[in-house]
Amino acid sequence: MVSSSQNPSAQGLSGRKIVYDEDGKPCRSCNTLLDFQLATGKIGSTSSKNAGPKNDKTEVYAKVDPPDVETLGNSSWTLLHAITASYPKQPNDTQKGEMKQFMTIFSHVYPCWWCAKDFENFMRNNAPKVESREELGRWMCAAHNDVNKKLGKPIFDCNLWEKRWVDGWDQK
Amino acid sequence: MVSSSQNPSAQGLSGRKIVYDEDGKPCRSCNTLLDFQLATGKIGSTSSKNAGPKNDKTEVYAKVDPPDVETLGNSSWTLLHAITASYPKQPNDTQKGEMKQFMTIFSHVYPCWWCAKDFENFMRNNAPKVESREELGRWMCAAHNDVNKKLGKPIFDCNLWEKRWVDGWDQK
Repeated sequence: MVSSSQNPSAQGLSGRKIVYDEDGKPCRSCNTLLDFQLATGKIGSTSSKNAGPKNDKTEVYAKVDPPDVETLGNSSWTLLHAITASYPKQPNDTQKGEMKQFMTIFSHVYPCWWCAKDFENFMRNNAPKVESREELGRWMCAAHNDVNKKLGKPIFDCNLWEKRWVDGWDQK
Repeated sequence: MVSSSQNPSAQGLSGRKIVYDEDGKPCRSCNTLLDFQLATGKIGSTSSKNAGPKNDKTEVYAKVDPPDVETLGNSSWTLLHAITASYPKQPNDTQKGEMKQFMTIFSHVYPCWWCAKDFENFMRNNAPKVESREELGRWMCAAHNDVNKKLGKPIFDCNLWEKRWVDGWDQK
């Protein structure tokens, strides 16, 4: 991993150091959106009037209730797709094995039991494809669409999965 | 699991059937918040002016960029705490083993690499406690607080973890 001190964008608008991936590119899932955009040259360092360290000390934890099925579902898809986006393009056998195990255990421990059963059923007919990032990303997209279909939600075009979960829409 | 047809609140405000847990109680993580509140008698069936099936067909997927570190973090903590909340009070050996494996693999596949390393380090000094729901819930709370501390965020009182992630604040 490249140290942020080797890069001109050492500090982000959040006040935190910019974090880079092994290949030297800014890490999207390691930085706030503003910091990522600063490091990739999409915005300048003075573009946000609200720049500067956030005062998170004022954040209130209390009185937030446990997540309902929608919040839990949205959160979980965000994590699962992001996991596929950072999966190696050429995983080794350990990584392939762990990813299969992760999906299996996920279907056992997911808090919404009927969602978990559906996911388990999907996997019974569609074993996780773990040979590459591309394969896993498309498999997860298909899994999500299986749920979208059941809930009457729009079907996502899996040809766009990398734009949605890896690269973003405005750059390749 | 109790079929919703055996219960007076068969259909929720969302238009979906109310889903119940094995113990016959409405399942918080299986229903929308409004449906859960309807099933638990906290609201009446006419209390929402926006009641009725949602027209999710209008939902727009396109042009949403991949999650940054904040969105990913919030999503992941939501899932992880919810998983502890639905963990059995008296897990069997398989469940204990799977939960340990899940946390270990999670620390290998989490998309933000520096967050993943921190979680791995935390686990090296604080092995996951999987003997009961109470133990696991408090362990996860401590793991979250370890991150809160690093980021200068407020520390959560782990004595309240069940209110935050299992029961909600207004009922036990």
